[in-house]
Amino acid sequence: MAAVRDSKYYVDGILSQDLGVLSQAITLIESTRADHQVLAQAILSALMPKTGASFRLGITGVPGVGKSTFIESFGMAVIQQGHRLAVLAIDPSSAKSKGSILGDKTRMEKLSASDKAYIRPSPSAGYLGGVARASYQSMLLCEAAGFDFIMIETVGTGQSEITVANMTDFFLLLMLAGAGDELQGIKRGIMEMADALIITKADGDNLAKAKLARAEYAQAMHLFQTDEKAWIPRTGICSALQNEGIDSIYQMLREYKNAAIANNQFTQKRNAQQYDLLMSIIHTQMMNGFQQNAAIASQLKYLKEQIHFEPYQKAQELLALYYSTLAL
Amino acid sequence: MAAVRDSKYYVDGILSQDLGVLSQAITLIESTRADHQVLAQAILSALMPKTGASFRLGITGVPGVGKSTFIESFGMAVIQQGHRLAVLAIDPSSAKSKGSILGDKTRMEKLSASDKAYIRPSPSAGYLGGVARASYQSMLLCEAAGFDFIMIETVGTGQSEITVANMTDFFLLLMLAGAGDELQGIKRGIMEMADALIITKADGDNLAKAKLARAEYAQAMHLFQTDEKAWIPRTGICSALQNEGIDSIYQMLREYKNAAIANNQFTQKRNAQQYDLLMSIIHTQMMNGFQQNAAIASQLKYLKEQIHFEPYQKAQELLALYYSTLAL
Repeated sequence: MAAVRDSKYYVDGILSQDLGVLSQAITLIESTRADHQVLAQAILSALMPKTGASFRLGITGVPGVGKSTFIESFGMAVIQQGHRLAVLAIDPSSAKSKGSILGDKTRMEKLSASDKAYIRPSPSAGYLGGVARASYQSMLLCEAAGFDFIMIETVGTGQSEITVANMTDFFLLLMLAGAGDELQGIKRGIMEMADALIITKADGDNLAKAKLARAEYAQAMHLFQTDEKAWIPRTGICSALQNEGIDSIYQMLREYKNAAIANNQFTQKRNAQQYDLLMSIIHTQMMNGFQQNAAIASQLKYLKEQIHFEPYQKAQELLALYYSTLAL
Repeated sequence: MAAVRDSKYYVDGILSQDLGVLSQAITLIESTRADHQVLAQAILSALMPKTGASFRLGITGVPGVGKSTFIESFGMAVIQQGHRLAVLAIDPSSAKSKGSILGDKTRMEKLSASDKAYIRPSPSAGYLGGVARASYQSMLLCEAAGFDFIMIETVGTGQSEITVANMTDFFLLLMLAGAGDELQGIKRGIMEMADALIITKADGDNLAKAKLARAEYAQAMHLFQTDEKAWIPRTGICSALQNEGIDSIYQMLREYKNAAIANNQFTQKRNAQQYDLLMSIIHTQMMNGFQQNAAIASQLKYLKEQIHFEPYQKAQELLALYYSTLAL
């Protein structure tokens, strides 16, 4: 990467909406080098007061559902509504395919060409925790750079969806009609997290199937409804190819946002997400410290193979052992 | 409670299947007194090698689904198959109703009268974590006392179901036909955890509705199937009143157990449950220690109300603060 500058360079560049500087700053965020991390944190700290003023949309769906085409089509509709759009990705598996699901920008020709859109591929490697951190912090930088609509896309693989759902205002699940649920790799819990489920490729011979699938999913999602939830998850169909149903998705999001702001859920959800993320990072780091402790690690390895131990007592023993090593 | 004896008294009594002594030992487990806890742990340690040889069945369903009637009817079928049956409960809400969902033994007349059955009401108060510990350890004592079939029942309230599902070999969800999903309080995720869903009260005018409901749930549960799972969740109907469909539930459990043993899943699931429980206790205790730390607690209170902080950086600050207080 380019020579590292001081934090003021990045902060000023991002605030003046210089996308080259934004990209450099995101590269710092993605770097695991200690000095890069220190600099990245300084940039983030300076920019925090300028973050938060975007609509954060999470998008998931398995490969083949037409995510890129959807984002291209829906993204252009978002821009036409006057937004500046940033598209990010969380794809821990992308290391395999040597790049990002967004890497092939040729699949998003119009968006790539628009000066109202910024597309940032997923880091080309990394474990989910690291990729999640990079995406979350990149989202903050994009907001500071004046992007007021953020899309974070991921693939249908379970844990990465939870991560995206927990950092966005609205979580959109894209599905194909008639591909069979198993084929679409619906994992437990993903449908439940969705604020809306949209059947893609609802055109031509596929239209009738899409309508049927929508009705089936509407019934299935009905099972997940609880009275606690102000927003009742919706279902819909769209064709990115024919630009059908795209505008109504935008209208739905606007309706959601207005309702959530009106009943104070919008800020509450953001605050809760931020606090939960904080606690989850602390949890991960504390547990990592515990599990990587040499004395503990050898005990855990042994216990994993054992049938007969009493977990409550064993927990006390291990914690006493751990804290005794910390006190040394 | 009666005067406290030494651990040998309890260990010998339990191994000789003295149910009075078993009850006294469970009372020790439920006690929060430090000396009772020390004694309870000594008893558990001595008995651990004698635990594990039971089939552990979790049962849930909202009030009104007929759980007591089902357990009475199904429990008698289990006993007729030659088992000794222990029935335990996890009901953190029972403090409200001043006693247990199993407290009214008159609803289980035959079981209560059988010398092959042991029914232990849920502790009459306590937070879920404490009730869960008591139930788990009570289950171990029942196994040491020769009970080879354990039922752990709970009410349909979310977290307690997860607790029960995570400590049993098979998780059974009881449902009513035509009560409306909302009325039955299906929480997100509970249907997904079920290894089988049984519609109760499938008799008389209700039979046709029960069959229809079963078909609907079978379709909904189909959405949760993943190829990773060896066991495909089943649906069924039963009438405890007419003793219809009760034996086939027993046959299903036997089929499950045989298949799980044959493909080695039975022991694997047990080991994984035990290890996960260990890690979850450690997690809870570490996080409690963190959150109850005075310096941390005041920061967290403040952060809960804040919109703008960067969770990754804040986590580092809080952890550094916490470990600095531990080192004092």
